[in-house]
Order: sequence, then structure tokens, then C-alpha cells
Amino acid sequence: MKKPDLGTIVGLILAFGLILIGNHLEGGHLSSVIQPTAALIVFGGTLGATMVGFPLDEFVRALKTVSLFFFTKAQDPAKVLEEIVRYAQIARREGIIALEEHVQKAQDPFFKKAFLMVVDGIDSKTIEQTLELEIHHAEEKGEIPAKVFEAAGGYCPTVGILGAVLGLIHVMSNLSDINAVGSGIAVAFVATIYGVGAANIVCLPAANKVKMKNKAEMQLYEMIMLGAIAIQQGENPKLIEQKLAVFAHGSGGHGKKGHAEAKKAA
Amino acid sequence: MKKPDLGTIVGLILAFGLILIGNHLEGGHLSSVIQPTAALIVFGGTLGATMVGFPLDEFVRALKTVSLFFFTKAQDPAKVLEEIVRYAQIARREGIIALEEHVQKAQDPFFKKAFLMVVDGIDSKTIEQTLELEIHHAEEKGEIPAKVFEAAGGYCPTVGILGAVLGLIHVMSNLSDINAVGSGIAVAFVATIYGVGAANIVCLPAANKVKMKNKAEMQLYEMIMLGAIAIQQGENPKLIEQKLAVFAHGSGGHGKKGHAEAKKAA
Amino acid sequence: MKKPDLGTIVGLILAFGLILIGNHLEGGHLSSVIQPTAALIVFGGTLGATMVGFPLDEFVRALKTVSLFFFTKAQDPAKVLEEIVRYAQIARREGIIALEEHVQKAQDPFFKKAFLMVVDGIDSKTIEQTLELEIHHAEEKGEIPAKVFEAAGGYCPTVGILGAVLGLIHVMSNLSDINAVGSGIAVAFVATIYGVGAANIVCLPAANKVKMKNKAEMQLYEMIMLGAIAIQQGENPKLIEQKLAVFAHGSGGHGKKGHAEAKKAA
Amino acid sequence: MKKPDLGTIVGLILAFGLILIGNHLEGGHLSSVIQPTAALIVFGGTLGATMVGFPLDEFVRALKTVSLFFFTKAQDPAKVLEEIVRYAQIARREGIIALEEHVQKAQDPFFKKAFLMVVDGIDSKTIEQTLELEIHHAEEKGEIPAKVFEAAGGYCPTVGILGAVLGLIHVMSNLSDINAVGSGIAVAFVATIYGVGAANIVCLPAANKVKMKNKAEMQLYEMIMLGAIAIQQGENPKLIEQKLAVFAHGSGGHGKKGHAEAKKAA
Amino acid sequence: MKKPDLGTIVGLILAFGLILIGNHLEGGHLSSVIQPTAALIVFGGTLGATMVGFPLDEFVRALKTVSLFFFTKAQDPAKVLEEIVRYAQIARREGIIALEEHVQKAQDPFFKKAFLMVVDGIDSKTIEQTLELEIHHAEEKGEIPAKVFEAAGGYCPTVGILGAVLGLIHVMSNLSDINAVGSGIAVAFVATIYGVGAANIVCLPAANKVKMKNKAEMQLYEMIMLGAIAIQQGENPKLIEQKLAVFAHGSGGHGKKGHAEAKKAA
Repeated sequence: MKKPDLGTIVGLILAFGLILIGNHLEGGHLSSVIQPTAALIVFGGTLGATMVGFPLDEFVRALKTVSLFFFTKAQDPAKVLEEIVRYAQIARREGIIALEEHVQKAQDPFFKKAFLMVVDGIDSKTIEQTLELEIHHAEEKGEIPAKVFEAAGGYCPTVGILGAVLGLIHVMSNLSDINAVGSGIAVAFVATIYGVGAANIVCLPAANKVKMKNKAEMQLYEMIMLGAIAIQQGENPKLIEQKLAVFAHGSGGHGKKGHAEAKKAA
Repeated sequence: MKKPDLGTIVGLILAFGLILIGNHLEGGHLSSVIQPTAALIVFGGTLGATMVGFPLDEFVRALKTVSLFFFTKAQDPAKVLEEIVRYAQIARREGIIALEEHVQKAQDPFFKKAFLMVVDGIDSKTIEQTLELEIHHAEEKGEIPAKVFEAAGGYCPTVGILGAVLGLIHVMSNLSDINAVGSGIAVAFVATIYGVGAANIVCLPAANKVKMKNKAEMQLYEMIMLGAIAIQQGENPKLIEQKLAVFAHGSGGHGKKGHAEAKKAA
Repeated sequence: MKKPDLGTIVGLILAFGLILIGNHLEGGHLSSVIQPTAALIVFGGTLGATMVGFPLDEFVRALKTVSLFFFTKAQDPAKVLEEIVRYAQIARREGIIALEEHVQKAQDPFFKKAFLMVVDGIDSKTIEQTLELEIHHAEEKGEIPAKVFEAAGGYCPTVGILGAVLGLIHVMSNLSDINAVGSGIAVAFVATIYGVGAANIVCLPAANKVKMKNKAEMQLYEMIMLGAIAIQQGENPKLIEQKLAVFAHGSGGHGKKGHAEAKKAA
Repeated sequence: MKKPDLGTIVGLILAFGLILIGNHLEGGHLSSVIQPTAALIVFGGTLGATMVGFPLDEFVRALKTVSLFFFTKAQDPAKVLEEIVRYAQIARREGIIALEEHVQKAQDPFFKKAFLMVVDGIDSKTIEQTLELEIHHAEEKGEIPAKVFEAAGGYCPTVGILGAVLGLIHVMSNLSDINAVGSGIAVAFVATIYGVGAANIVCLPAANKVKMKNKAEMQLYEMIMLGAIAIQQGENPKLIEQKLAVFAHGSGGHGKKGHAEAKKAA
Repeated sequence: MKKPDLGTIVGLILAFGLILIGNHLEGGHLSSVIQPTAALIVFGGTLGATMVGFPLDEFVRALKTVSLFFFTKAQDPAKVLEEIVRYAQIARREGIIALEEHVQKAQDPFFKKAFLMVVDGIDSKTIEQTLELEIHHAEEKGEIPAKVFEAAGGYCPTVGILGAVLGLIHVMSNLSDINAVGSGIAVAFVATIYGVGAANIVCLPAANKVKMKNKAEMQLYEMIMLGAIAIQQGENPKLIEQKLAVFAHGSGGHGKKGHAEAKKAA
């Protein structure tokens, strides 16, 4: 289920809101920073440069991940761990074949693929190789949208400067009227603001967020892989839980409970 | 077969088109950003610096990859996978020797080399070593044009600044006529625009695209290598397909089909 | 026990104090660098951008590590090593089971988890895998606050420039009164100072300190892991001390003592 | 035999020539960019900073590699491969001892050392360890001149800015005569040109070229090492040629020939 | 024995000397670049920021390595290799125990520790593990002062800009007297010079030199470790010399001599 990503939404509102309020308090007019031609130059140039830099399908895929930026679809690792432990218990009590009906109902395609291989009786080395290859590819694929945003965030400020210099060239051709010069320079500077702002408040943070969400998903996949292999090898459900707990809760703080459980299991 | 790379073409048109339209809407004249002497300084200086930085043959080879930038010649990994699976079926039914006539007709030199080694009965460890060495070298060789464009994109803006400062020095020698100063500065600024624009809209995106195409080709080679080794070891065609599917389709979404096939195969 | 981190406190006082004293001696007024609107733009924009760039819980966790920045809670590795050697002696004399009552009283959750696994009789390979997974996760988790501060330190100066350009746009609209222009530019420049100062005196150094403290903690964990495994394998307490000494005292200078002890132990 | 490095020579002529021609066409005088004091500040400061940054002997060694920059002394890998294949054939026909007289005549010290170890009957594991250690050291040693040029290229532009600011300080002390100010600024700007130009047209490209030549030499050494070990282990000359072909010709395009040869050899 | 580091001393004199001479020749007065308040802001701010960024003890340790910067205390690897070969000969002739009296007289703590372990009869795997742990820690510890200087060199120029902007703010408040403005700007610019100069002529080169000296010391330690293990395993002194020669003399050029010796040894 998708949940709105509060960090992104609140962050964008805070950043743009406070900057505009600050500008207003300093006596600046909102109208003086709204300039369609500067936007055309900066965003058009950045868009074009980014399209040049990436294969078209990757570029389109990156645009589609904009939703990833506003929504969180990541599964709760603690719940996935619970599911793995439940599978381990079923496999212990009723045999690995008994997992098949549960696996068929699984939502996540990676989870399903991993446990179908277990149910199919494929050996653990082949499972590990296949799933590691899959994780490796998913990780690289998931990084590309982050790289698209990063590249856009790199081109943006320099295209902003390009826009500003274009404006300044226009201004410089006629230096006699000092007030015209002033407002001309003001207009030129807006391109810089668009470039710097889009890079530092949108593109680079977006790249970072996509990267972090991708990393979290890969850790989930790694937990599923380790869990599937452990179940295939008939490991004790309690020990599986203790070993994978770090993926679900982070380190530390679970010593006591883990101890009691591991003791019963040993 | 070569296909035009739409991303590059549309991207370049968008970037330069929108920047020039924006400049026109702001009241700038196209003529004011066309200056052959600035172009001579910026592009000549960058060209020279890049030639200094690379062995001459690598520099020439990078210039030739400009076509790689406008055209896509990459093979469809899904089709190559189909071919590998077909080979695996032939090898199963008729023996590895039966592959020879098919291999002779293969287009891609890496594909041909890999399967000729299989047909020649060379052991799988030697095949893996030889092909890995080959992939490693092809990867490094394929990265060099990207490095040439990256280096050019690094020298470009600073040579642009050098050109602008040269212009400013000329202007500064005579500050008495304010309008002459203005247009002099305008002229000097064009060098900056050339440097920043060439770097951010052409060189750096080109470097990125060459890198990504090279990476995609290396993944194809890796799939071919894994496929050749698996066929040499007599693995089940269905399992080969399932294992290599990730190279052709990306991860996820194929659990169901793979499951049914793997079951029949096991 | 938490101890105040003198480096942070003295460093901040020195940096801000000497800069302000220098400014005062140059004839600058403190009031001219205190501008709430510039602060609103720079710190608000940076705060928002950083929130956009990180998952909300990681962002909140980073804010909480501000205490880590002013206080030192790290344990003395020499004392932890003493404890490990004491455990090794108990295990030698009275058997591993005799450790249980001591382990129950341990404060540090990682130390407790490691030795509980030893007491529970889990095999050393599983202990190593579980603890390495835990250290790996703790290391990545501990790096995130450093990355948050680093990102903030990266956005900060450019948002400062954005604030300055916003101010300059306002100034440029009215160039006729030269003194108004001067003080307008002065006001605009304060945003730059806030951005550059917050990045270089607070955010980036903070990121570095968090990173170094995290690294020191991970080395402690590594020592605990190696100690727990050595005790589980019944190694000689003197040899354990000699091997782990490097974590507690750094390299060199202990040759003589270690020699005498190792000789007795061999 | 040393051959002049056309890339370096043509590149330097192109870069400096086109920049100066461009400057001339814009109306600038050559005399206005020739300023011994600016050169003293920029090149002296950079020279000193680079000496501070490196051990004296490494610094001197880097200065000596300037010839490496203008000349190419690299051996043709295809010829070295031919020699290795010839050695392999001799070793097959007449035994490894028969290689001794040929090895004594070898020019390249690494080639000689490698095959002397083979002739001396040292086991292949020791040969591999010794030669890998040697390659590793040669690689690190060969990278240092590149690092010296890179460091100089890093200090250069900032020392250029330092020189320009020094000039501006001098100009700013007397702002009353506008034309004197203009020419003063012009003079100050020359330091920037020297710094930016020396970095981007000489130092950084030189660092890159040294790096690439070093890498090519290391690949040659690696080929020699693999060849020596293969000969020591009595491998088939045809297979050695096929395996090492990638070092001499790059990948691909040799499938047909290699196939025919390998077949005869198998 | 400590020897003065000529590179550092000559480099600093050259850099500062030539810059000041260049400034003098351009007509600048030394007095105009000596400004205690700018120094207070730039060096005070940098000092504070660096203290914030590092644990206090590491910061203090880095300050103490300033002597490492002016003096060379590294041992000559060729002499250490001679000593190792002498030890190998003693161990061959008189047995490993005979080394004890020589080891007791050794100066270098790492050398002593390594050979004491050999004399104590500890197995070669434990020696390798212990010494590798020690080298790894010594390497990390030795890198920290370099990181302190690098961080200072990173904060320095931006604090210089901060100081310059503070000065400009002061100037901008009163633009009516053009000559006062000029000298005010001149004063403000000095902070930039301090920041850029301290970073590029002192801090960054110092960081580099500390890094390179640390690396050389680690290579010495590695040679000692390999030598100690080889002696413990009773290897031939000639072969040890040949294998470790690369640490003492660099690669190449010793083929002939090594050959003759190895032949006698085999």
C-alpha cells in the first residue's frame, strides 16, 4: 500500500515556503522571481542535457519514479520477517512442500520467486546464485533514476549560469540607462536562482531519497534470500529469526529476548 | 542494425532550441551569441588539451564513437537469450558438436568466440578465464571514449573562463567609453557560454551515454559467457533461461512462468 | 557515562568567537550580520532540502544525534579489553557456562549479545556471521546521520547564494540611490555568510565527527567479536590480549610486555 | 626506441596556437598576456606547493617524466606477444633450459626477470607472487608522477586566483583614475589566465597521459607474467597466443583465426 | 635519526618567497597583505572548525605531526632488508632461537614485535593475522593527521571567503567615498588570500606529504612482515632477498644480479 512520503512533502513546502516568506519580508516581490523565459532556458536546457545523457527508456523510467519520491511503497521489514519465520515453522512442521499454497498467494514478486525455487526443490547454491544475480541487477536498475536526478542536478546550476550570462550579454549591450541595467541584471539573476534552487532543493535531494529507498529495498531482498536459503536448509525458526532480526529492528536492544529463544531452540 | 538514438537527437534539439527561444523571448539577438573568435579559443583550446591528455589513437577512436552517440547498435538481450536457449536445446538433443554450423553463422564476434571455444571442447575453466579477460579488456577499452568526453567536459568551462578573461583584459585596457565597455564585456561573456554549454549539454552527457551503452554491452557479454559455460556443462535449457532471464527482462514479474517451466525441468 | 566533547565545544566557541572578534576589530557591527530574514531563507531552505533528501525517520534520528556531537559516550577500549581478558580467564578456569552470570550484568547490548551466543553454545561460524551482519548494519546505520549533516552542509552554501541573489535582485530593481544600493548589497551578502559559515563550521565538521565516532565504535565491536570467538574456541587469555591489544592501545610500543607474557603462555 | 608523442605535441600547439590566434582576432595584444611578475607568482607558488606536497625524490622523478610526456617508449604488445609465443615454441621443442640464451639477450628488465625465474626452475606460485608484487609496486611508483602533475594542476588555478587578488588589492588602493584601474585589473587577470591555462592545458592532461601510459605498461607486464607462467606450466603455444591475444589486439574480430588454430592445438 | 625534509622547507620558501617577490615587483606593498584581523578570522575560524570535526586527541596528535612535515624519520628500506637477510642467514646457520639476542637490540617496535613472535615460536598464521591487524590499524591511525590537514585545507578557503564577505558588508554600508571603498575592498580581499594560500601552499600539500610518508612506512612494515614469516618458514635467504628486493629498490634493473644469486640458491 502506498503511503504519502511526509519528508518529501513537508520538506518541499518548508524549503520553498520559507525562502519565499524570507524574500517577502526583505521587501522582494514574488513577481520579480517569476520569469517564464528564464524557466524555459534553465529547465529546457537541463531537460535536454539529461535526455542526451541517458538512454531514452531509462530517462522515461526515471520520470515515472517521481511517484516514488512522493509516496512510500516499501514493505515493513518486520512484517516480512514475521512471514519468513511463519514459513520456517510450516516447513519444519509440515515439510517444504506445504509452503506451496502460501507462496502462491504472496504479493512481492521477489519473495514469490525466492520461495517458489525453494518449493521446487532447487539446490541452495543455485538459489543463492540466481537470487544474488537478481538482487545485483535490481540494485543497478534502481540506482539509475537516482543517477538521472543527480545528473539533472549537476547540469541545472550551470545551465542557470548560462541563462544568467545570456541575460547579462543582453544587458551589457546597452549600459547607458543605469536603471534599465539594474532591472536587466535582476532579470538575468533569476536564471541562477532557478538553476541553484532546482538542483539543491529538488534534484539532488530526490536523487538521495531514491538511492536510500532503493538500498532499503535491497536489504529487504537480502533478508528474503537469506531466509529462503535457511528454510531450504532446514534451519531452526528461532535461529533464523535471531539471525535476520538485524534487518528488521536494527542492531542491539534485543539481546535478552533473543537469548531466551535461542536457548530453547538449541 | 543501427537505429537512431532518439534521446540524443531530441535532447540536443530541446536543449539548444529552448535556450535559444528563451534568449529570443528575453530580447537577445542570436547574432550576439555567435562569435567565431570565442569559438576558436574555447573549442580549439579544449581540443588541444584533450589531445594532450590521451594517446593519439584513443583520441581518434573517441571521435569515431560520436556515431555511437547518435545511433544505437546494441543487440536486444531478449533475442540473444532466445538464441542461447536454442543453442542449449540443440546441444541437449544433438550434442555440442552440432552447434558448430550455427556458430559459424553468428554475427557478434564475442558470441562467436565464446561458442567456438565450447565447440572446440575447451574446458569450462579456461573458457571462463579467457572470456573474463576479454570482457575486462572490452570494458576498459569501451570506457576510454567516455573518459575522453569527460576530460573535454572538464577542460571546456575553464577554457571558456580563460577566453572570457582574455576578452575582459582587452576591455579593461580602455574603460573610458562605457558603451564600448558594455559590448566588450558582452563579447567576452560569450566564451563562458560556449564553455559551459559545450560541457553540460554535449560533453558530459555524451560521456554518460557512452558509459551506459558500454555497461549494457558488457552485461550482454556476461550473459553470453554464463550461457556458454552452462551449455558446455550440459545444464537444463529451462534452468539456463530462468537464470539468465534477469539480463533480458530485469528482475521481478516473471515468477509464475519461470515456476511452471522450472518445475517441468526439475 | 556521557562526557562533554571538549573538541566540539571549544571548537565552536573559537570559530564563532574569533570570527566575530575579527569582524569587530575591522569595524563591523554585530548587528549588521544578524538578519532574521536571511536566516529564514538559508536555514529554512536547507532544512527543507535535507528533509526532502532523507526518509523522515532517518532525518529525525540525525537531529537526535546532535547530542552525540556535544557529548562522548564511547567506552574506553582498554577497559573493554580488560573485561574480555577477565572473561577468557574465567572461561579457562571455570568453563564457558560460568560466564553466564557475568554476561547478564553487561551493559553494552552488543557485548551482551556476543557473549550470550557464546554461553548458549552456538558454533563460532554462526556467531561470526551473526555478529558481522550486525556490525555491518550498525556501521551503515551509524553513517546515516553523518550523511544527513553532509547533505545539509552541501545544500547550505548554495542556498546561501540563492538568498544573496534574491537580495541582489531586490537591490538591482532600484540602482539610483548609491547608498541604498550599498546597504542592500550588504544585507544580501549576509545570506552567503550564513550559508558558508553553517556549512564549514557546523555541518561538515559535525558530519566528520559523527563518522569518526561511529568508526571507533565499530572497531570496539570488532574487538568484542574477535574476543568472543577466541574465548569460544578456548584460546589462551594472554594470546587473546596480545592479539587484541592493537584495538586498545594502537600499534607499537608494547613489544616487550607482550613478549614476556606470550612466552609464559606458549 | 623512443618515438615523439604526436598527441602531446600537436595538442599543445593547437591549444596555445588557437587561443592566441583567437585573442589576436578579438583585438588583444600578445604583449598584454605576457607578464613576468604574474608568471613568477603563479608558477613559483605552484612549484613550491607541489614540492611541499611530495617527497623530494618523487618530485624530481616526476620532473624527469616530462620526457615521457613528449615521447612514447612503450613497446608494441603485439611484438612482445610474438616473442612470448616464440619462447613457448622453443620451450616445447627444446625444453625450458633452451630459453636461457634467448633470455640473456632480452632488453626489457621485467621480461628478463620473469623468464630468468622460469629458466631457474622456480615454481610457478613463487613466480606469480614475486611478479605480482613487482607489478603492484611498479604500478604505484608509475602513478606518482601523475599524482604530482595532478596536484600541481589542482594548486595552479587557486594560486592564479591568489595572484589576481594580490593584483586587485594593489588596484583597489587607488580607485580615482578609472583608466589606471582598468589596466590594473587587466594586469591582475593575467595571473588567472596563467593558473587556469597551465592547469587545464598542461598539468591535468599531462597527469592523464602519464596515467594511461603507465596503465598500458602494466597490461604489458601482466601479459608477460601470464605468458611466463603458462610457459613454465608447459601450455600449448597456440592456446597461450589465443588467451593473451586480447592484450595485443583488443577484444573481438579474431574469432575465426583463433578457432582454426585452437582446433589444431587441441 | 631525523633528517630535515628539504622538499618541505625549500617548497615553502619558494612558494611564499616568489609570491611576495612577484607582488613586490607588481608594485604591491608587503604591508597591504599583512592584516592581523583577517588572519584572526581565517585562521581562527579554520582552527575552530577543524577542532569541531575531529576528536580532541586526534586533533592534538595531528598538530604534533607537524614535525613529521619538516623532518624525515623514515628508515632506509634497503638497510632494513639487509637486516632481514642477515636474520635469515643467522636463522639458517644457528636456528631461530639464535635470533633472540639480536631482536632484543632492535630499535623499531614493529620490527621487534614481528621477530619476537618468530622467536617465541608462534605459528606463521597467527603471526600474519596479528601483524596484518597491526599494519591495518597503524595505516588508519597514520592517515588521520592527513585527514585533519585535508579538512583544514577544505574549510580554509571558504572561511577566507566568509572573511572577505564580512569585510565587503562593512564597505558596502558606506559607498559614497570611492577611495575608502577601494581600500576597504582591498582589506577585505586579504582574507581570501590567507584562505586560499593557507589551503593550497600549506594544508593540502602537508596532507599529501603525511599520506605519502605513512604509505612508505606501511610498505616497510609489509616487508618486515613478509620477511618474518619467510624466516619462520625457513626460506632460503637469497630467495627472501630476491622476493623483497622490490620494496627496497623498486622494480626492474636487478634481473642480472638476482638471477645469479637465485641460481646458486636453487
